[in-house]
Amino acid sequence: MSNDAGKRNQEPLVVRTALELSAAIADRLVRVAAAGGTATLGLVPTMGALHSGHESLVATARAQNDVLVVSIFVNELQFNDAADFERYPRTLDADVRILARAGADIVFAPEPGEVYPDGRPLVKLDSGALGAKFEGASRPGHFDGMLAVVAKLLHLAMPPASCPVPARYSAYFGQKDAQQLVLINRMAKDLNYPVEICSVPIIRTAEGLALSSRNQFLTPEQAEAALVIFRAMNMIKVRADRHEPLFLEDAVALFEEEPLVELDYFELVDPNTLQELAFNCRETPFTGEGLLLVAAKVGQVRLIDNTPLGY
Amino acid sequence: MSNDAGKRNQEPLVVRTALELSAAIADRLVRVAAAGGTATLGLVPTMGALHSGHESLVATARAQNDVLVVSIFVNELQFNDAADFERYPRTLDADVRILARAGADIVFAPEPGEVYPDGRPLVKLDSGALGAKFEGASRPGHFDGMLAVVAKLLHLAMPPASCPVPARYSAYFGQKDAQQLVLINRMAKDLNYPVEICSVPIIRTAEGLALSSRNQFLTPEQAEAALVIFRAMNMIKVRADRHEPLFLEDAVALFEEEPLVELDYFELVDPNTLQELAFNCRETPFTGEGLLLVAAKVGQVRLIDNTPLGY
Repeated sequence: MSNDAGKRNQEPLVVRTALELSAAIADRLVRVAAAGGTATLGLVPTMGALHSGHESLVATARAQNDVLVVSIFVNELQFNDAADFERYPRTLDADVRILARAGADIVFAPEPGEVYPDGRPLVKLDSGALGAKFEGASRPGHFDGMLAVVAKLLHLAMPPASCPVPARYSAYFGQKDAQQLVLINRMAKDLNYPVEICSVPIIRTAEGLALSSRNQFLTPEQAEAALVIFRAMNMIKVRADRHEPLFLEDAVALFEEEPLVELDYFELVDPNTLQELAFNCRETPFTGEGLLLVAAKVGQVRLIDNTPLGY
Repeated sequence: MSNDAGKRNQEPLVVRTALELSAAIADRLVRVAAAGGTATLGLVPTMGALHSGHESLVATARAQNDVLVVSIFVNELQFNDAADFERYPRTLDADVRILARAGADIVFAPEPGEVYPDGRPLVKLDSGALGAKFEGASRPGHFDGMLAVVAKLLHLAMPPASCPVPARYSAYFGQKDAQQLVLINRMAKDLNYPVEICSVPIIRTAEGLALSSRNQFLTPEQAEAALVIFRAMNMIKVRADRHEPLFLEDAVALFEEEPLVELDYFELVDPNTLQELAFNCRETPFTGEGLLLVAAKVGQVRLIDNTPLGY
């Protein structure tokens, strides 16, 4: 079955509870499966405040699935700063308009009490050493809280067992949050979740800045300075493509020439385990696969970015 | 649909891999659902070495489901003592004979490498404060390891989304392991697992000793002494049934008269949260619900038992 272009631009059904969500998913699956065969169901979990990066994620999921659910939930558990949680933008009406244009069938926008009816979970997900490094080092508890809500959402949006239609289930996450993606893949494997985890590449401005809801807080001068991230990653990518030694310190040096940008880390890691890789000396030219991870602060704004090498 | 008595005493299908398990479950669900309606699927996770307590668990699940899966897997992660893990009885042939008599349709008996293909999980379940008290206090890591394998098994034996038959899914656990049951219930809620967790009462000898694979290590004299556990719980249960103050110390005093039995804990707790309850003073007669938890050592054998109060 392929997606019916005619259903785009229809208002998605906005549901607030787990029960409504299951019923809506079963209803849509039954409808698309009328012609027989296996229906495909896609989930895109978001925290709302949607930008073009999310639109690309939704567009990919839309193209690959008969039924598309987008969840919008600002998950307090993954904020280690209460003020940051309070001021996180809530723009449901604008988000639903974007999702109507993008062709989502169902928007799941639960209240906190629906997701955490008993308050904070007593049984928690533990992201371990994988969640303690890089972004986890500056945001204690962030990845455990993220996994807690993703573990729930993957179940809440699953094809209901009561649904009389065979289905295939996929969930979509952006490559922008590389460490998050690694952890979700790991959780899905470690807990044998019956879902395929799919990822979608980073969307950038024409100049190379990765889209982020935080970019709006940058002055034009800061946004210009932040392009050093893209230049530095590109310098290393060119060497990787040529299977040369990488000499990451050359890229790090570029940051020293940008007084507006304070580098946090610039690391080459294994894309599946986030273990640091050493392709830095003249004797070790780059081979295989790697992921370049970058975090930097521009004024008060922390930016993260990444580039796969050797793909 | 009700269970067809004619299929009992047939050899169950023994499968070793997750793929075989899914295929076998889908195949059975389709067969039982031929008459239409919703098929029911039950899972009984065990570590094998089955005794009459397990048989009762399996019999309940058998009576309530069209398709019954019993898993047998000795989960290294929940042993905090490597020697204990090594000497844990593996009696697959005898177990399968018992399960044939009990009417199981499918026995899932995976190798460790099938359950943990990448070794120990990197993303873990954290049983938190609930898993640190009582049994957790003397077995560090036990409940986290138990949750890790239950989280997997609940997914592995789930009605496959690709199955064209509406199904209802339940998993069965014994009330003997009360803290384990509370934690599994909690995990199912906290992670929104699409499964109903069912529990089955403790089976006792005629004298009152709760069945356990560890009872075989007791001498006749020790087994006799161990009956103090049942007497002590009963003393308190009688007072609870009369809504009297409980005075747990009267029960604790019984243990002091049994030199062969060393009491570890004797506590009244909330059955859902395992919080200690105070119904001990003359001013506070027992009302509501409680769970009496007991652990004691008889020689080298650690026994646990429990009784619900006010049900």
